[in-house]
Amino acid sequence: MPDLRKDPVSGRWVIIATERAKRPDDFIIEKAQKVEGFCPFCEGNESKTPPEVYAVRDGSMKDTPNWKIRVVPNKFPALSSDGEIKSQRDGIYRSMTGIGRHEVIIETPSHTKFLHNMDENEIRLILETYKIRYNKLKEDVRLRYILIFKNYGFEAGASLSHSHSQIIATPIVPKRVSEELYSARNFYLEHRNCIFCEILKKEIDERIRIVDENEHFVCFAPFASRFPFELWVLPKKHTAFFEEIKEDEIKSLVKIFSSIFPKYYKILNDPSYNYIIHTAPVQMSGKWPTIEYDYHWHIEIIPKLTKVAGFEWGTGFYINPMPPEKAAEFLINAGGGT
Amino acid sequence: MPDLRKDPVSGRWVIIATERAKRPDDFIIEKAQKVEGFCPFCEGNESKTPPEVYAVRDGSMKDTPNWKIRVVPNKFPALSSDGEIKSQRDGIYRSMTGIGRHEVIIETPSHTKFLHNMDENEIRLILETYKIRYNKLKEDVRLRYILIFKNYGFEAGASLSHSHSQIIATPIVPKRVSEELYSARNFYLEHRNCIFCEILKKEIDERIRIVDENEHFVCFAPFASRFPFELWVLPKKHTAFFEEIKEDEIKSLVKIFSSIFPKYYKILNDPSYNYIIHTAPVQMSGKWPTIEYDYHWHIEIIPKLTKVAGFEWGTGFYINPMPPEKAAEFLINAGGGT
Repeated sequence: MPDLRKDPVSGRWVIIATERAKRPDDFIIEKAQKVEGFCPFCEGNESKTPPEVYAVRDGSMKDTPNWKIRVVPNKFPALSSDGEIKSQRDGIYRSMTGIGRHEVIIETPSHTKFLHNMDENEIRLILETYKIRYNKLKEDVRLRYILIFKNYGFEAGASLSHSHSQIIATPIVPKRVSEELYSARNFYLEHRNCIFCEILKKEIDERIRIVDENEHFVCFAPFASRFPFELWVLPKKHTAFFEEIKEDEIKSLVKIFSSIFPKYYKILNDPSYNYIIHTAPVQMSGKWPTIEYDYHWHIEIIPKLTKVAGFEWGTGFYINPMPPEKAAEFLINAGGGT
Repeated sequence: MPDLRKDPVSGRWVIIATERAKRPDDFIIEKAQKVEGFCPFCEGNESKTPPEVYAVRDGSMKDTPNWKIRVVPNKFPALSSDGEIKSQRDGIYRSMTGIGRHEVIIETPSHTKFLHNMDENEIRLILETYKIRYNKLKEDVRLRYILIFKNYGFEAGASLSHSHSQIIATPIVPKRVSEELYSARNFYLEHRNCIFCEILKKEIDERIRIVDENEHFVCFAPFASRFPFELWVLPKKHTAFFEEIKEDEIKSLVKIFSSIFPKYYKILNDPSYNYIIHTAPVQMSGKWPTIEYDYHWHIEIIPKLTKVAGFEWGTGFYINPMPPEKAAEFLINAGGGT
């Protein structure tokens, strides 16, 4: 009998098809596809990107070789960085000027380094850069939400294969995010506790979905996983704001990253994936006084192993043929871990 | 400057990247992929599916050749048809037995007939079958929602290429559906009018996003389209319940279908797509007395031309590089239409 499970945060139901439980190899659509040809992100091609807005360099000049990380505006930004926010109403239709920021974090000068084969030092620089750019973009008072995410592989939406992440900052709080915020607030109002802290407690008690854990972070396959091998990474300490992450917490998170991605690579044969940092909106001071209590930042990691089809689009409810308990077991058995 | 647009029903924002406007050819990922090899849906292979639960036949025997449409239980159902609904609560986690129904509508005995090359009579049989099976499944009092949808092409999640649709009936009202219902109810409470009727009125007034229209239906690219060439088909007459569709309305809808899918085929080079019938939940009598006023059934059609990436998963907000006004223009210019 399949199991219907409800995600306690989003209220989304998922069908866990326990009887069709499969092995990791059954899910492999294809290896994360690499794009061939000229790569504007490679060392030496700095002139092919918009001028960098941040870089980790050993004294070399801006937009020249010899760097470890470069951050550049997206050449084809989804939102425009210049201009004023203007709202329009035309009968029932509302629109707004597409103001925002869209940056690309080029994570390494090398075309063949990825999260699954970088060393801890390289991963640390990426996470530190996330924090630095987040805090920089936060200064733009027109913005309400800053989203850090990664598309790895063509199936996950990456149009260039050179390892990179993106930051999109928007003038509104996106729907999925505000649903999560409201749900967390309602839970807090009712229970005087953070829903994510409750989830953490439950996961650590049961220890049947945890894939990795260290001083500051827990990584587990969520109870109502939408996708096979979906993982969430939560800081153990309750905190709503990713941007307040401390140096020793970054070190812990690096260890989680350098454990998870080699595991994916190994048992899922280099899958495409997305990850997304879910954190509180910006410019909220005074507007949502309880946010620091009721929200809890975290990372969601989704390998792209199945196609999202009509049923999912029509209902927002997912069929997952890999029970998270099984997924955790496969990932643990892949070895590694902190 | 990109345009941020808000869908009046879901409240979802979409980035319409007007400046990157492209031609239809720019979106083609690949032709809807056909699965080769043995096909259990072809005429003559009736024994390879579970026994049919409904068919359109000219006097031939059940589960033998000589039929026009067959409906069979899915061989690998997402939900189990036997058993009782049992809810469980384990701390913050809730689950339920996976009871429901999962049927496949085999739309034609031919392996090479699809919506883009069927005649009107063939399409009419499909739509009539939707209505018949919907009303049949409605008798199962354990169910709350009946979803009719189609996955065409591998990119859209189809695992067999022979033309078919699916029906999944669930014991809960899915999240996306209840969001739409609540939003429509709130609009009705505030305005004493149906939000979909308002959208229809606006679209017919402006006539810049309408692709096809006839006596009973309007087909248009929605103002806040999430995807390039997304289309909605709305009945002109306000009605919450797909299953009450009348014979002459089916005829009108057939004309829309036989106009739209050849257009997709022509300008998007046989794309993968999903469509989904959004209709009111079942077993609601007495529980939601205003539903017949505030909801309005419709069909959403989504060609699979872009990859859904981290940004979309993280925010529920979409980047669409094809303004719906342009999409409508391309589709109108493709010719045909009722």
